[in-house]
Amino acid sequence: MPKVKFISHQKEVDVPAGKTLLYAAAKAEIPIDSVCGGKGTCGKCKAMVIFGDRGTPTAAEREHLTPEEIEHGFVLACKCHVLEDMVVELPHKKDSSNRKTAFVHIKQPEVVEASIEKYLIKLKRPTAKDLRPDCDRLLNSLPLDGLRVSREVLATLPRVLREKSFNITAVLANGKLIAVEPGDTTQRKFGLAVDLGTTTVVGSIVNLYSGEIMATSATANLQQAYGADVVSRITYAVQQEQGIEQLQNRILRTVNLLIDDLLAQTKIDKFEVYELIVVGNTAMSHFFLGVDPAYLAAPPFIPAFTGPFSLRAAELGLGMNPQGRVLVLPSIAGYVGSDMVGVMLATNMDQRKDISLAIDIGTNGEIVLAGRGRIFVCSTAAGPAFEGAQIKYGMRAAEGAIESVNIDSDADVQLKVINGSPPRGICGSGLIKAIAEFLKAGIIDSSGRFNNAQTAPKDLSSRLKERFIKRDDGACFVLAWGRESANGDNIVITQKDIRMLQLSKAAIYAGINILQKEMGISESEINQVFLSGAFGSFIDIESALVTGLLPKIPAERIVSVGNAAFDGALLALISKTSRTRTFFLPGVVEHLELSTRVDFQEEFVNALNF
Amino acid sequence: MPKVKFISHQKEVDVPAGKTLLYAAAKAEIPIDSVCGGKGTCGKCKAMVIFGDRGTPTAAEREHLTPEEIEHGFVLACKCHVLEDMVVELPHKKDSSNRKTAFVHIKQPEVVEASIEKYLIKLKRPTAKDLRPDCDRLLNSLPLDGLRVSREVLATLPRVLREKSFNITAVLANGKLIAVEPGDTTQRKFGLAVDLGTTTVVGSIVNLYSGEIMATSATANLQQAYGADVVSRITYAVQQEQGIEQLQNRILRTVNLLIDDLLAQTKIDKFEVYELIVVGNTAMSHFFLGVDPAYLAAPPFIPAFTGPFSLRAAELGLGMNPQGRVLVLPSIAGYVGSDMVGVMLATNMDQRKDISLAIDIGTNGEIVLAGRGRIFVCSTAAGPAFEGAQIKYGMRAAEGAIESVNIDSDADVQLKVINGSPPRGICGSGLIKAIAEFLKAGIIDSSGRFNNAQTAPKDLSSRLKERFIKRDDGACFVLAWGRESANGDNIVITQKDIRMLQLSKAAIYAGINILQKEMGISESEINQVFLSGAFGSFIDIESALVTGLLPKIPAERIVSVGNAAFDGALLALISKTSRTRTFFLPGVVEHLELSTRVDFQEEFVNALNF
Repeated sequence: MPKVKFISHQKEVDVPAGKTLLYAAAKAEIPIDSVCGGKGTCGKCKAMVIFGDRGTPTAAEREHLTPEEIEHGFVLACKCHVLEDMVVELPHKKDSSNRKTAFVHIKQPEVVEASIEKYLIKLKRPTAKDLRPDCDRLLNSLPLDGLRVSREVLATLPRVLREKSFNITAVLANGKLIAVEPGDTTQRKFGLAVDLGTTTVVGSIVNLYSGEIMATSATANLQQAYGADVVSRITYAVQQEQGIEQLQNRILRTVNLLIDDLLAQTKIDKFEVYELIVVGNTAMSHFFLGVDPAYLAAPPFIPAFTGPFSLRAAELGLGMNPQGRVLVLPSIAGYVGSDMVGVMLATNMDQRKDISLAIDIGTNGEIVLAGRGRIFVCSTAAGPAFEGAQIKYGMRAAEGAIESVNIDSDADVQLKVINGSPPRGICGSGLIKAIAEFLKAGIIDSSGRFNNAQTAPKDLSSRLKERFIKRDDGACFVLAWGRESANGDNIVITQKDIRMLQLSKAAIYAGINILQKEMGISESEINQVFLSGAFGSFIDIESALVTGLLPKIPAERIVSVGNAAFDGALLALISKTSRTRTFFLPGVVEHLELSTRVDFQEEFVNALNF
Repeated sequence: MPKVKFISHQKEVDVPAGKTLLYAAAKAEIPIDSVCGGKGTCGKCKAMVIFGDRGTPTAAEREHLTPEEIEHGFVLACKCHVLEDMVVELPHKKDSSNRKTAFVHIKQPEVVEASIEKYLIKLKRPTAKDLRPDCDRLLNSLPLDGLRVSREVLATLPRVLREKSFNITAVLANGKLIAVEPGDTTQRKFGLAVDLGTTTVVGSIVNLYSGEIMATSATANLQQAYGADVVSRITYAVQQEQGIEQLQNRILRTVNLLIDDLLAQTKIDKFEVYELIVVGNTAMSHFFLGVDPAYLAAPPFIPAFTGPFSLRAAELGLGMNPQGRVLVLPSIAGYVGSDMVGVMLATNMDQRKDISLAIDIGTNGEIVLAGRGRIFVCSTAAGPAFEGAQIKYGMRAAEGAIESVNIDSDADVQLKVINGSPPRGICGSGLIKAIAEFLKAGIIDSSGRFNNAQTAPKDLSSRLKERFIKRDDGACFVLAWGRESANGDNIVITQKDIRMLQLSKAAIYAGINILQKEMGISESEINQVFLSGAFGSFIDIESALVTGLLPKIPAERIVSVGNAAFDGALLALISKTSRTRTFFLPGVVEHLELSTRVDFQEEFVNALNF
């Protein structure tokens, strides 16, 4: 039977040949909108076939999909028959969780100062006494000297000038002429900010006069077909012929899908979008520009570039004004990307008077410590535990994930599951909370070792004691019995899970300690801690302190700031001053490479216990 | 029966369906190399199908043609069967004439100073103490500040640096970094100069160290499928959807064929070619860059641009180093193109102390008069007579064209035919010579009217008198009787031919007079006259003076300088100083628009008589 893999949900099912993708999705327990029940009339069940024969588009597909979508491999899941192994992406799949966060929202700058400027100009018409070429006629009327007209602007200039009787709007990006439009278009200019996440790409479209966010959207990074994490994608890119191009194409397609969605939501024309600010980890910045990432992945981890990089949208084939500017914000080092520069900008790291710490936790924990006129940064290999990988029942923070655990020693375990559905696994923030509760209840000791029904504290309830079980893979503690869970399995935390978490939290804690040592401060001197990123936004701060993921800082000084990397990109989009500040960061920020430091190894070992 | 049109030879034949193109060419009396006699083994009979079904490439075609050639529509004429109407180009068709010219060759500059510079640099390898990104490592080692690395250079930079252990050659064009090559490539750098003629495109590949021309080639301008002259091509471009793109594609394909040929002749790799200098008339410059030429063709004849225009080769898809620079030299006005700027550079018009005149004669006559610290230029509509069009037996200067006529009043007409073959027609320079001889022998009077056997001078030989004939189209004079000619027709000069020539020569003469008037000089003050272009190179100077095409200047002051436009492009390629001089010309040269001047009309009427 052919296999269908849904990369967005990391699920795979076998289906009899000839069944539809809708059937396969149902079998994989993935909810797909299908209002019409598979008749092909509602057009809701769009999916993208990444590998495998998608067949010829049916009439229903030609009706509900644009030619671009068909070209990109989109199908209606109800009309696409599985004849061979397929890899499928369900695009624009919003996280099915209803989790609300309490972000400290980044303040907008007081003044919006976009780098895109529009000038309405009335040119003199040519006469027998004034035979200047169109190009000179234009340049002589513009408010800046030394401007250059690109081939693309020149190509249509004669008609553009004459379309509205020599009234035109000149569009300048950062003092460069990028477009000339017939008549008065000075009322509209828009820009984009995009965060290239390894898993999810997030973007907003912004009114460049008001700074207002017109729409925000997120979509799965289509590079996932080539590996879940950055290192496996780099390996693919380096080993395959044209691997770099393939990965670049995937991320550009992802961004184009996102842009299409933002334009469709807002009815903004792509020619009205003149700027795109991009942040991402250093590898994503390389992929986005099609730059060889080979030497990022191995010591001494040398990136091809870290500086800000600007180019025309047409050079990447992005679905905005082709002459619009794309700016990839600067990175700091191979493992400290422009996303972290975005975090620094959004949390004002380069301008703070007090001592502040910002932490972005993912597979890598990136840590910034600013104060006393210096900014230190490091990246520490936290491993994938916080993202639910390599944890027995680990999963992403989606429907069915245990996001919180409460243990009452007198009673039993209480779970909070995303969307209130039967539990399927546990996400990173749930895991931290569980371990904190284990520690408080004495289910594990401070070395991380499981007690058992005998060695556990006497006052533990018998219900809790029943949850100590032994399996082939060692000692476990049952969070949800099979009768309660989505698939009938006992959902447990294993001893190995706890060891994984210890490695992860020790890496973060040791990283923070090294930065404190470099600055010559103790943790009590840290005035403010910012937790950013998806994990940082949902983590229970109390648990982070109990488990020793964070140093002992009063909880009220610790705030979650949501996707601060993306907020930084938004700030750079609407504020030239903010943007310029990022350009100085690579020269100012002191990057500590932890892998070569003996003292890091010591700190790490010391931080393993709870 | 399907028709086959050979645009390179302006011939059309009907052939039975299923016959080969080789058969069609033979029927049209066009010689094609076919060493193997049509077996498909020699690969000599290449042709390009521009319109019509070329069929699937045969095995012989796949053997003798490159995939690029097949994609561009090339076939072997012996293997391509005519099933429907076709338009065919015989590429790289050298002019079949053996005519040798005695050009005054443009002196090379004393010093070759190319704008392409190469620097061999040994970079420091990264160490744990030196983790600079590759891009910074490179830029810090380069001899110039403020350089920028393009996306394309960046994309492969990591491997390029490491391929020869961080020894690299940096290539700068005009102070911009365009390429980084592994190891030492400083021994080789090449450039191209191209003249975009309306009919023929000529190019050379040049060693940018020595200035040596490595190879020169010419090919038919493939735009001819859309019109023989510039105005009809502009009309096509403006009226057809995507007409501009089509015409741009055609000229770019032509240039790419030329480049391919030059590279093949010299075994130079395309990545070693870093610069291309382009000249052409203003419309060709527009087409080359894909710029709308609509307003060039109608009063007040406003070009989109005249300034020099520089861009990356990749932006046009040219077959040289994609990061190499393409520079279109500046034009002066809608009908005074960069080709004329090339003429001015090659003839040193901006630096001459004496008074000099340069004339480039084609459908338009472009005239430059320099002296007394000023440079005047005008363009005058000479019409197509000099190029053989609208003349009863006019033809281009190819095999079978009468190129010279001598009339001995006592005897008869003596003809000189290109390649010594039986005459087929008469080319422009032959026509001028014939008219001069007619005047001297009294065959026509000074008003241009034919005498006849009765009114002709008494001493005219009877053989000559027999040559006055009357036909439906009026009085004629027979140059070659049907028994001598290639197709059995009497080859004659008609009264209308003479009137056409009078209009043409009057336009040129009046143009020269207007320029003299503006400068306030008489023709005796002109020290030097340069005749450029194909017509100017072959014209009999004595005849040009007799017919009043040129003002009465001693013949020894008049020289033919060949394709001076192209020589100007070559100069600009190998000399930065020369190139820079052209940038100042549009601001210095005084352009006179003749069409609006009453005094031009007067001068024109006065110049009609011989």
